[in-house]
Amino acid sequence: MRIEAKLAALGLELPPPVRVPQGVRLPFTPVHIVGDRALISGHGPQDGTGASVGPFGKVGAEVTLDEGYQAARLTAVSMLGSLARALGDLDRIEAWVRVFGMVSSAQDFHQQPAVINGFSDLILELFGDAGAHARSAVGMVALPFNLPVEVEAEVLIRR
Amino acid sequence: MRIEAKLAALGLELPPPVRVPQGVRLPFTPVHIVGDRALISGHGPQDGTGASVGPFGKVGAEVTLDEGYQAARLTAVSMLGSLARALGDLDRIEAWVRVFGMVSSAQDFHQQPAVINGFSDLILELFGDAGAHARSAVGMVALPFNLPVEVEAEVLIRR
Amino acid sequence: MRIEAKLAALGLELPPPVRVPQGVRLPFTPVHIVGDRALISGHGPQDGTGASVGPFGKVGAEVTLDEGYQAARLTAVSMLGSLARALGDLDRIEAWVRVFGMVSSAQDFHQQPAVINGFSDLILELFGDAGAHARSAVGMVALPFNLPVEVEAEVLIRR
Repeated sequence: MRIEAKLAALGLELPPPVRVPQGVRLPFTPVHIVGDRALISGHGPQDGTGASVGPFGKVGAEVTLDEGYQAARLTAVSMLGSLARALGDLDRIEAWVRVFGMVSSAQDFHQQPAVINGFSDLILELFGDAGAHARSAVGMVALPFNLPVEVEAEVLIRR
Repeated sequence: MRIEAKLAALGLELPPPVRVPQGVRLPFTPVHIVGDRALISGHGPQDGTGASVGPFGKVGAEVTLDEGYQAARLTAVSMLGSLARALGDLDRIEAWVRVFGMVSSAQDFHQQPAVINGFSDLILELFGDAGAHARSAVGMVALPFNLPVEVEAEVLIRR
Repeated sequence: MRIEAKLAALGLELPPPVRVPQGVRLPFTPVHIVGDRALISGHGPQDGTGASVGPFGKVGAEVTLDEGYQAARLTAVSMLGSLARALGDLDRIEAWVRVFGMVSSAQDFHQQPAVINGFSDLILELFGDAGAHARSAVGMVALPFNLPVEVEAEVLIRR
């Protein structure tokens, strides 16, 4: 539980499963394991109860760059919570593969990479060389629940 | 032909290959097989002739949530048509891997998951446990041919 | 160096690594190799110095379809530059797998496939059958650095 220990040392706590608003159905798997690949569904920032957490809206409009960075960092924590439940131990992650960072963006906002750095910086801090990943960071017109950030990813796991 | 039988029982017919408007070139493979992976290009809803089918426009503006759900369901049927042509038999699909659901969205539309459920619900109904998948459902400012929904996916196949 | 020779015959030169504006951090890997897969981060068009190159803006507004096509072609050249650095020789690419083409789009622009054809056409010209790929071509509300086009991809490599 080396990664979990690092998270604790940073004062970060893994949230429980996503708690969705009444009437919302999410008929898919947060982490879907196929062979040695773990495909990770789109995640957003959660609070300690598992609920989606704001600030809500588009980065470059209602949400600032700094708030977007923090939302992306919280999204990494949220994803690690799902991975911990699916894998039992985050140390089973052999390598990060791909990170697809989606930023709900105002028409004229072009700093998506600086927002998704909040995700990448934490993954690199926790996993070191194994945290290296291919990445895109791009602007969406709108995201579910009016989230400012959503990230989809893939990791390689030890079986 | 277990999956094809289920489709028939639901009264669903697989459409022919995509028929594109004059002058449009799509120089890529609808289903690209690499080892035991089948990568599936972005698909949208088609009618029985293979043409793209409306209602066209953005969900939350010209297109309602219910119409979006139906378009996503038709998109699954369209994709199964491409998979049947590429694989010979849909029973060769061992597992669904990843679904990336793109919804042409009005600025303030945030129910992309409820739209893409039209895709996921049908896949799960047809494939059962093998239909489980990782998924993102997100908002695009515009999609080709003014489609309301486009889905890209990956499945694992038996060789 | 068969592919490099073809590039030279077309008069195309691979650009140096991406040169980012001051203060920009991109803490990820342009080409991330995991087993026989090379995951390629989002790339845009570059000039001969490695800087992002315009015309900047949204296709269908500030940028024309033809300019978008050329930007997508330059994006392929940019990506081949990163692949050449990561692999040593572009002939190590056994097959293209997936191309995800993102077009910064005006609200009512729906010809994303015609833009991303600038990418696909060059890859097919250079790689022949090995250049075949699954593809999506979709509309983003905004891209980093106000680029008109960004492409993410995956290739299979010989080890």
